[in-house]
Amino acid sequence: MTSSDLYPVSRLAAVQEATAKAGLDALLLTPGPDLRYVSGYDAKPLERLTCLVVPASGEPCMVVPRLELPAAEASPASRLGLEFVAWDETDDPYALVAARLGRVAKVGLADRMWAMSSLRFRDALPGAEQVLAGSVLRELRMRKSPAEVAALREAGEAIDAVHRRVPEFLRAGRTEREVGRDIAEAILAAGHATVDFVIVASGPNGASPHHDVSDRVIQAGEPVVVDIGGQLHNGYCSDSTRTYSVGEPPADFAAYYEVLRRAQEAACAAVRPGVSCESVDAAARDVIAEAGYGGYFIHRTGHGIGIETHEEPYIVAGNGEPLEPGHAFSVEPGIYLPGRHGARIEDIVVCTENGGERLNDTPRELVIV
Amino acid sequence: MTSSDLYPVSRLAAVQEATAKAGLDALLLTPGPDLRYVSGYDAKPLERLTCLVVPASGEPCMVVPRLELPAAEASPASRLGLEFVAWDETDDPYALVAARLGRVAKVGLADRMWAMSSLRFRDALPGAEQVLAGSVLRELRMRKSPAEVAALREAGEAIDAVHRRVPEFLRAGRTEREVGRDIAEAILAAGHATVDFVIVASGPNGASPHHDVSDRVIQAGEPVVVDIGGQLHNGYCSDSTRTYSVGEPPADFAAYYEVLRRAQEAACAAVRPGVSCESVDAAARDVIAEAGYGGYFIHRTGHGIGIETHEEPYIVAGNGEPLEPGHAFSVEPGIYLPGRHGARIEDIVVCTENGGERLNDTPRELVIV
Repeated sequence: MTSSDLYPVSRLAAVQEATAKAGLDALLLTPGPDLRYVSGYDAKPLERLTCLVVPASGEPCMVVPRLELPAAEASPASRLGLEFVAWDETDDPYALVAARLGRVAKVGLADRMWAMSSLRFRDALPGAEQVLAGSVLRELRMRKSPAEVAALREAGEAIDAVHRRVPEFLRAGRTEREVGRDIAEAILAAGHATVDFVIVASGPNGASPHHDVSDRVIQAGEPVVVDIGGQLHNGYCSDSTRTYSVGEPPADFAAYYEVLRRAQEAACAAVRPGVSCESVDAAARDVIAEAGYGGYFIHRTGHGIGIETHEEPYIVAGNGEPLEPGHAFSVEPGIYLPGRHGARIEDIVVCTENGGERLNDTPRELVIV
Repeated sequence: MTSSDLYPVSRLAAVQEATAKAGLDALLLTPGPDLRYVSGYDAKPLERLTCLVVPASGEPCMVVPRLELPAAEASPASRLGLEFVAWDETDDPYALVAARLGRVAKVGLADRMWAMSSLRFRDALPGAEQVLAGSVLRELRMRKSPAEVAALREAGEAIDAVHRRVPEFLRAGRTEREVGRDIAEAILAAGHATVDFVIVASGPNGASPHHDVSDRVIQAGEPVVVDIGGQLHNGYCSDSTRTYSVGEPPADFAAYYEVLRRAQEAACAAVRPGVSCESVDAAARDVIAEAGYGGYFIHRTGHGIGIETHEEPYIVAGNGEPLEPGHAFSVEPGIYLPGRHGARIEDIVVCTENGGERLNDTPRELVIV
């Protein structure tokens, strides 16, 4: 896949149209996923302002520090035929953006714009109401194109290759950190540009869903939750969890692991166009609750994924939004027994016309190493 | 050095006092350097709100997603004796913060707070004017404690160890990317937690100050700018640039390298309490301008450094702020001949009562490899 497939030149016009339709005068996109999505430019987040100015009508431009001009020009943004407006060290780039925009009533800020920029824009554009660019971009970003689905599939294959190697790394007597280091290297070796997270949660640490790694020595007979992901060079992210056991697991663990496996299966099976996000969450939750573990499933079922590991749609109670073909998200129920152990199974699932397609396919049964 | 030295428990009270003095009712610190500086907690930036609420008077608290509670409790923030307020997946954490704060007229937002949070806080606290937390924290953050200076010294020694190895890596026939990969590994091996940037700019690429690495093959007789840095596990950052030449450099390069060396020396020598930031910039710029290269020094002389690679004070024309003991910043003039080559020399300098102390000490003469 090339940048042109993943970040098509036509996207900018579609974004302008959506901006106009939403009643915004312009989007102001500083470095981060919104800027990358619209332009393909993976700009470094810096204190010097880089901003893609996307008016609802008229010519977009990219305001960049002169030092970053070569990087911006070398990026996929150069295909868009827009003007690069370079500013020098003692210029005020916020005034520069304001002058280009003229009179505006409502602007959309990149969801991750830093306060140091959003407050400067508030002052430089005193009449303009600020809303999130996400209000315009979310619909577009949620609905993955075939090229984006292919990129997520490639990310899924890359992280699956790492999970297949986990049994090599995971042994009683090693610390979580040692195992995590091997996994991090394997994530890069599998073709990721960055290691975004490595959770190796052994024994009681498995009961903390966002445990990282620690110096705890893994013991025989312990379940270990391994939740790992990274970002490919093309920007798309991987995220998959499998639970392993170092030798035979405790009886109380074995009792709920199969419940969890069925819950994850049920949620994946519930995915199809028109079904609400919260009903996918409920599909997993109901299985777990019926088995008496409802109080031990303490987080939402999933999150959207794309050029961010966590993005919309969120698979959570209260989100009545219907799934559409192209929506891609994690399905990752878990059961956590404080002080004892925990388990989670996570696949990335893309909604297709025919239901959910999982982009991970390593075994979901408990892997005993 | 322990967390208690670098992130002392007493800092929170000092920050509350400064908040009151600045006429703010509270600081709202989301994950990033401001939160870490005040609490020692290196929280992951996530879409789920983590926020240290620091009222000008009264009890601070840390609002955290329940999933992050174990991480927050395991962090140095647990020493502060503040309440951790955990919120659940379907709670509104912004309303929760607003309820804790009560009536407020002016709040300071972490400089890097994402718009997705700052706009939610705007709506949850409709009467409150938003300003940057930096307006309160900048003075404190700029003035490094002895422990912080020691941490920056440790970072300087770590990156110096990498520069000493660069001659092993840099050879004609290798690509910038290959050399960069070796340097990145060496940055981690020298004790950094992360590799923040690796610039290997050979020949004409050296004329772009923020060049990264490329697949360009380094040729004999070419100057190469190597600008590298990372973050130690304790949070403090390194940043040092040296310029190398692969064999004898071209005559036009040799002509200006010595000018640059003198300019960097002059700027370092200008550092002492009471001297303005812009006069340190001028000290370097004047030497370069007098030699006829003024038009080729296209960026500011430096930036502050601490738990961010770029922070205040900025060593730039227009910044009349006087230096104080404990201010730490880069001194990094450069000369860039478009299409030809470039050079930069960068040390981190800390202002002491007796003048500037450089925290890097590898040779500043051109290193011919």
